[in-house]
Amino acid sequence: MDKIKIGLFGFGVVGRGIYQVISQAVNAHAEIRRICVRHIDKKRDAAVDPALFTDNPDHIFSDPEINLIVEVINDAEASFRIVSRALRQGTPVVSGSKAMIARHLPELIDLQRRHSTALLYDASSCGSIPVIRNLEEYYDNDLLLEVKGILNGSSNYILSRIFDHRESYGAALERAQKLGFAESDPTFDIEGFDSLFKLVIITVHALGVYVKPDSIFTYGISAINDFDIRYAREKGMKIKLVAQVAKVTSDKFTMFVAPEFVAPPRYIYSVDDEYNGVVIRGECYDRQFMFGKGAGSLPTASSILSDIMARRHNYRYEYKKMDYLDLPAYTTDVDLKVYIRYTDPIVPEKIGFREIHEQYRSAGFNYVIGTVSLSDLIAARPLLSTPGTFMVNIPIFFTDRDN
Amino acid sequence: MDKIKIGLFGFGVVGRGIYQVISQAVNAHAEIRRICVRHIDKKRDAAVDPALFTDNPDHIFSDPEINLIVEVINDAEASFRIVSRALRQGTPVVSGSKAMIARHLPELIDLQRRHSTALLYDASSCGSIPVIRNLEEYYDNDLLLEVKGILNGSSNYILSRIFDHRESYGAALERAQKLGFAESDPTFDIEGFDSLFKLVIITVHALGVYVKPDSIFTYGISAINDFDIRYAREKGMKIKLVAQVAKVTSDKFTMFVAPEFVAPPRYIYSVDDEYNGVVIRGECYDRQFMFGKGAGSLPTASSILSDIMARRHNYRYEYKKMDYLDLPAYTTDVDLKVYIRYTDPIVPEKIGFREIHEQYRSAGFNYVIGTVSLSDLIAARPLLSTPGTFMVNIPIFFTDRDN
Repeated sequence: MDKIKIGLFGFGVVGRGIYQVISQAVNAHAEIRRICVRHIDKKRDAAVDPALFTDNPDHIFSDPEINLIVEVINDAEASFRIVSRALRQGTPVVSGSKAMIARHLPELIDLQRRHSTALLYDASSCGSIPVIRNLEEYYDNDLLLEVKGILNGSSNYILSRIFDHRESYGAALERAQKLGFAESDPTFDIEGFDSLFKLVIITVHALGVYVKPDSIFTYGISAINDFDIRYAREKGMKIKLVAQVAKVTSDKFTMFVAPEFVAPPRYIYSVDDEYNGVVIRGECYDRQFMFGKGAGSLPTASSILSDIMARRHNYRYEYKKMDYLDLPAYTTDVDLKVYIRYTDPIVPEKIGFREIHEQYRSAGFNYVIGTVSLSDLIAARPLLSTPGTFMVNIPIFFTDRDN
Repeated sequence: MDKIKIGLFGFGVVGRGIYQVISQAVNAHAEIRRICVRHIDKKRDAAVDPALFTDNPDHIFSDPEINLIVEVINDAEASFRIVSRALRQGTPVVSGSKAMIARHLPELIDLQRRHSTALLYDASSCGSIPVIRNLEEYYDNDLLLEVKGILNGSSNYILSRIFDHRESYGAALERAQKLGFAESDPTFDIEGFDSLFKLVIITVHALGVYVKPDSIFTYGISAINDFDIRYAREKGMKIKLVAQVAKVTSDKFTMFVAPEFVAPPRYIYSVDDEYNGVVIRGECYDRQFMFGKGAGSLPTASSILSDIMARRHNYRYEYKKMDYLDLPAYTTDVDLKVYIRYTDPIVPEKIGFREIHEQYRSAGFNYVIGTVSLSDLIAARPLLSTPGTFMVNIPIFFTDRDN
């Protein structure tokens, strides 16, 4: 219950938010002792004591007063070096680097166990929504069937502008970037990778299984066009970028990231703008829905503050589910129903449809709705990136009712 | 990390749900060793081993194998005797008895501390939504401004039937009772006491302050009539029974339970049927919304299972916020804007309005909309129960935007 003395790596949007949030939370008993930045000479906010800044990581690693490292830098490789070095020397870490965590999680878990220390990263998934902590602690039983949601605020903001404000994709993207809702590289958000990394982390805490990001089907929203938008509107639906992990049998689960047609009765239909929303479905409690700001400096910072406070009580993830005897296995041998809009007829031919339900051809646009296995979709993934092609998932599987 | 061996008190709807959920959750490493019931001779489900049952509490208290007591009985006094006896002998307890907990919480906290044991009761507030645990652990900082929501599934079910299905109050109540959504005594739900007790518990974990139930303004929905329903409909709103605790300044907070006009943009507008929904508002993360089933055997049982699992890792509430140096103080010196429908003109005269905004008189119904202090409302509480009178809160305070 000592005071938390923080060595902070990174002073970008989130770093500055953390500084502000800690100053506001007078009962938090936390203080920032040092801030390591790449460019020490950059002009900074005058409210921050210049003596706090350093560009030498050793000034943090060798300060015996520092009992927590908070890492919010944008470079995944540098982030991994900092976090693994901290864990190896037994210093607990709070990190917001989802790409780094998703890629290195087995190693990071091992480091935590070997050096009896902790790495917390609730802020890495869904900004201010405490998904990881709840999956780890509260849904710590095998009643869990599915976690599904909108995990990326930036792409959701763009889709909201399109569907609620009738903006074009280009205008919406530009606005998102201007407002700072897009992360440093927009492809990261738009192509689904941000959602993917969060999904990988969520799956470890939901089902106790780590799946490598590269083996998971991931498809973004950048190829959406007016035809798709009109199609969805005519059916009274929106298109949302949805990440999901779901048990398909008692011993198998599947997971993927894809745009999805979402009808009004579903919880995620109303998750708009930069918000995130997660539906947790279980065998006895049915569906739970958590909703909150998924992007932005202060929401992310307040989530990191929750992780910082948890360290005052020596909280750590135990990864309990990983020790379950009967862990479910990842499978791509499941059928999906998808809408594929295309110009080149080779696309629907080669996709490997098991069954075609609808076909539409016109001068401007063509689409097919059909059933295809996820493994065939993975094999056909490059085809789906050919010009004129866009895919939207039509949710029909794994659930006995809409969510 | 030993196996949890449970002594269960109560085998009503929730008790049977717990039995079922534990049988389903094979990785839970929990077993029910003994079930104490009042009437040992009652006919039971054949699937449950009759040897488990006893009507002698000592068979549980003196069983050295039992390492957790789960208490889900309906009699608050008996519940307090069981829970306090267990804590005094150092046995941890999971309880679902909100009335008992809300009335005895300071004493129960003291018992937990003195005997180094734990009492968990997440299931007592909002059924399957992990509100208590999240307030205790995740919102463990003083950025929290407000917790507000629909905490009672039964009254919400009734109001949903009225507003979404145009049923009369009487028909809706009858249907709720038939479906088992009403607790043993309907007044408990309908008059707001169930919400009140949950609010008292939530406030301890939200702000670190215990307020006696008797000192909190509580007003239910039983006096609602067709005029109120039509009035709300004409304005495009629903009436919901809302419990709220909110900071009004940095060192003061207020709390009350009352029907409220709720407009469509607000999160709780869409919380229908037996669902509960809670909005947590904070200084940096803005609003978070949690939503899930608030009534029913299995949702409550799965929530109790989460508490049981938490005991495998020796989890206990630390009541950290109670040790903050600058706890906010409870105040009723705040202004509310309310709608009061009445027949006897003495009602609006004596209510102590500071200001009247609207008045309507007709042959059948009259109403006033005015500003009144919460303390005056408390003083006028008996008046609000006179025949022909119904009050609805019009939310305008404590928040800078709708939620």
